Amino acid sequence: MSAAAKSSGPGTDVNSDPLGIVCGAGTFPIAVAEAVQRRGRPVVLLALRGFADPGVERFPHEWMPFGAFGTSVKLARKHGVRDLVVIGSVLRPKLLDFRLDWTTFRILPRLARLYRGGDDHLLSGVASLLDDYGFHLMGVHEVAPELMIPAGVLGAHRPSAEDETDIALGFDLLRALGPFDVGQAVAISARRVLGVEAAEGTAGLLSRLAEMRNSGRLMLPARAGVLVKAPKPGQSKRIDVPAIGAETVAQAAAAGLRGIAVEAGGTIVPDANAMVRAADQAGLFLIGVPLREEGRR
Amino acid sequence: MSAAAKSSGPGTDVNSDPLGIVCGAGTFPIAVAEAVQRRGRPVVLLALRGFADPGVERFPHEWMPFGAFGTSVKLARKHGVRDLVVIGSVLRPKLLDFRLDWTTFRILPRLARLYRGGDDHLLSGVASLLDDYGFHLMGVHEVAPELMIPAGVLGAHRPSAEDETDIALGFDLLRALGPFDVGQAVAISARRVLGVEAAEGTAGLLSRLAEMRNSGRLMLPARAGVLVKAPKPGQSKRIDVPAIGAETVAQAAAAGLRGIAVEAGGTIVPDANAMVRAADQAGLFLIGVPLREEGRR
Repeated sequence: MSAAAKSSGPGTDVNSDPLGIVCGAGTFPIAVAEAVQRRGRPVVLLALRGFADPGVERFPHEWMPFGAFGTSVKLARKHGVRDLVVIGSVLRPKLLDFRLDWTTFRILPRLARLYRGGDDHLLSGVASLLDDYGFHLMGVHEVAPELMIPAGVLGAHRPSAEDETDIALGFDLLRALGPFDVGQAVAISARRVLGVEAAEGTAGLLSRLAEMRNSGRLMLPARAGVLVKAPKPGQSKRIDVPAIGAETVAQAAAAGLRGIAVEAGGTIVPDANAMVRAADQAGLFLIGVPLREEGRR
Repeated sequence: MSAAAKSSGPGTDVNSDPLGIVCGAGTFPIAVAEAVQRRGRPVVLLALRGFADPGVERFPHEWMPFGAFGTSVKLARKHGVRDLVVIGSVLRPKLLDFRLDWTTFRILPRLARLYRGGDDHLLSGVASLLDDYGFHLMGVHEVAPELMIPAGVLGAHRPSAEDETDIALGFDLLRALGPFDVGQAVAISARRVLGVEAAEGTAGLLSRLAEMRNSGRLMLPARAGVLVKAPKPGQSKRIDVPAIGAETVAQAAAAGLRGIAVEAGGTIVPDANAMVRAADQAGLFLIGVPLREEGRR
């Protein structure tokens, strides 16, 4: 263990050691790196080869072969990294595509078990695995809370009373799905469930809606329905927090929806200004809904 | 009301008056008509123009313009029909596409209310509407129980222990979705929820799985996962009972699944022999799972 790998209890300077950012696909890892640097903490980007955006090279970084767990641990320790965040999508890779090193080989039975279940199961297993190797997994809400979507209407458009009914139904449905470790988004129109996200992802759900409307399979008024998105209940905020952006707005507009409701504080929006601008232009509302302790209604 | 429209209490001859079969799309209405005739009861097929299969003309029938409720009531009464079954899919038509007659016009506010909700809401509303006009809505399980899928393994292939775990999880998930009036099928592989059916229908769910596997978005062993299908909990067995057939087997095979589990007695299979033959050839298992009163495990 490096000397920097000290427990960061209350009162200690948590910012002295660099934050390790494990970078999957997309530009969200870069937005997080910028936000953490703005707060004065150094970063090291641990970029998954084949997944991470080349933009990570603007920061202190290491490229890591996916699956080479032992190498990755050594690289992180070399930089004195103890706190880690994991950002960006990684399509569940085939186990056999892993570039195995010796450490990975030793933990393989454990990884294989993680694969036998939903994404939550996989990801929370990864968290406890990292813990065993002396790393502390943190969430974006801890290292860059300004990237989480706030509560309230975010743009120029507001949900109607009917939209609010659909939004409440959507959050109820997402909560009922929680024990099954299934998707993070649903689409509702006039109290009818149009779609439920599972392995296809939010973009897949929205393109399906667009397709069903274009083909006449789904006949609705010109603008109808809301996308409701939230972390799975009980989902660790430390990994796989849902993320949205301007492209989500574009997809929702293509699906003919009226707006997007997300759980406030539970969703990353790397560039809120761009997203609000896109929503305003597309005529969609955008609202962050605070989680109620018992029953979001 | 025709003279035949008598209450058919216990002990009366329920087979004297013809059964009215409201025919949506597909050949299922014809399979039901044949089965009812085999049992010795006369039928009248009330074929929805633009939806019903031309094969309905082999039977006593009337073509009905969709939405012309008053005309349809008169035609049914002309034949002495009192008991009705409603079979075959009808994509939710736009309200404005209805060929309105005066009776429809009077019930329009009621129809509009029915449209504000899920399919269950729409269909149970239709049942109570028919009731008000003196018709008795029956289910396929009442008029042709031999068309419902029986309990047990139906073909040459059997689910593995792991498949059975996935099947139990699938039924649990379908039950959790019940209050939300959402789809009738889910796909599960190794305890992971791959897809949840909503407005896209079972064929839509299966083609999405095939696509995700072909594109590499979903990486699974060559044959993995089960389709689990059941009526929504609390769903009236009198309308919109899920139906499967050889084409469902073909779609499940294209999606790379290992088999299909359906609730025994809760799903119509118009040609069980053809379906079992298709499953045997494709190497898929096919099982009817009896509903347990409290908790299907």
